[in-house]
Amino acid sequence: MRVLGVDPGLTRCGVGVVEGVAGRPLAMLGVGVVRTPADGELGQRLVAVERGIEAWLDEYEPERVAVERVFSQHNVRTVMGTAQASAVAVLCASRRGIPVALHTPSEVKAAVTGSGRADKAQVGAMVTRLLRLAAPPKPADAADALALAICHIWRAPATHRLQQAQAAARAARAPRPASGGTSVRKVTP
Amino acid sequence: MRVLGVDPGLTRCGVGVVEGVAGRPLAMLGVGVVRTPADGELGQRLVAVERGIEAWLDEYEPERVAVERVFSQHNVRTVMGTAQASAVAVLCASRRGIPVALHTPSEVKAAVTGSGRADKAQVGAMVTRLLRLAAPPKPADAADALALAICHIWRAPATHRLQQAQAAARAARAPRPASGGTSVRKVTP
Repeated sequence: MRVLGVDPGLTRCGVGVVEGVAGRPLAMLGVGVVRTPADGELGQRLVAVERGIEAWLDEYEPERVAVERVFSQHNVRTVMGTAQASAVAVLCASRRGIPVALHTPSEVKAAVTGSGRADKAQVGAMVTRLLRLAAPPKPADAADALALAICHIWRAPATHRLQQAQAAARAARAPRPASGGTSVRKVTP
Repeated sequence: MRVLGVDPGLTRCGVGVVEGVAGRPLAMLGVGVVRTPADGELGQRLVAVERGIEAWLDEYEPERVAVERVFSQHNVRTVMGTAQASAVAVLCASRRGIPVALHTPSEVKAAVTGSGRADKAQVGAMVTRLLRLAAPPKPADAADALALAICHIWRAPATHRLQQAQAAARAARAPRPASGGTSVRKVTP
């Protein structure tokens, strides 16, 4: 399984591609950061994040995309940018029909270090070891993106079963028209 | 000036198109709501919002898009959806090169009712009067989208001067390469 991990952010959006299956050694295919200028105009920054994510999807053709789930207990300003960058990443993947999974920071930490409260250094060290790298990827956003991809590969069997159950529950609860779940109501004067 | 106002939301995204200039009677060209199922998968909802916004941009070809600026003092869950839907709206407009303005809820209320603390009913009543409609647009998200567009048209002269000053300040502070403000750093193993 090939997974693109995305640690969303407007200033630095970490991206990392990992290939492998649970229980076998994993391989890193690429890691990097999509950056946009902190003083840039919001729309231009979102377009730049979209272009960056699209380029990674084009080059690596991942089967799954794992994005960090955004919480709002952080700094208000940061969380907005994170939510907006994550929306762009999820949108890019979903537009191509690539399944997207969201993992919380503590799920990711627990998956790669065994503790949901691990610090950045521990996550970096374990990513380095698990992917047999010469040094921890820098900046931390890049290492976090790889950790997300690893987390997804290891949790995939359980996640997949959960998603199937949720989809079945949704289908049973409310049958939707074949045209999809959107309706646009419009009134003209 | 033709403006598309967007009151962002994942479940209900209000959209309204208003044409006119400050100091002259305004005309509503269209109003509606892009809806996605509350129990839908995030990626599919974002794709649906994108399709909805794109359809409105295609049909009305606005010169400006005005989006409500998201704050996080609301409910945590709601604010994430609002931030994500707003990112999609801003992205769609910016991709086409349409300038986007963000207005706070109190700026919008103050513009159309004279008070930044006006309630939904007052906003709806003023939108109805200003656009000479037979009845207030429903739901409130649709009326809010029209209020955003009206606010933008009335504030446009001041906003335009401010944006020019900010762009000039940015250009003076940090000259950027001609290729644009994004850099993608990539490391391959």
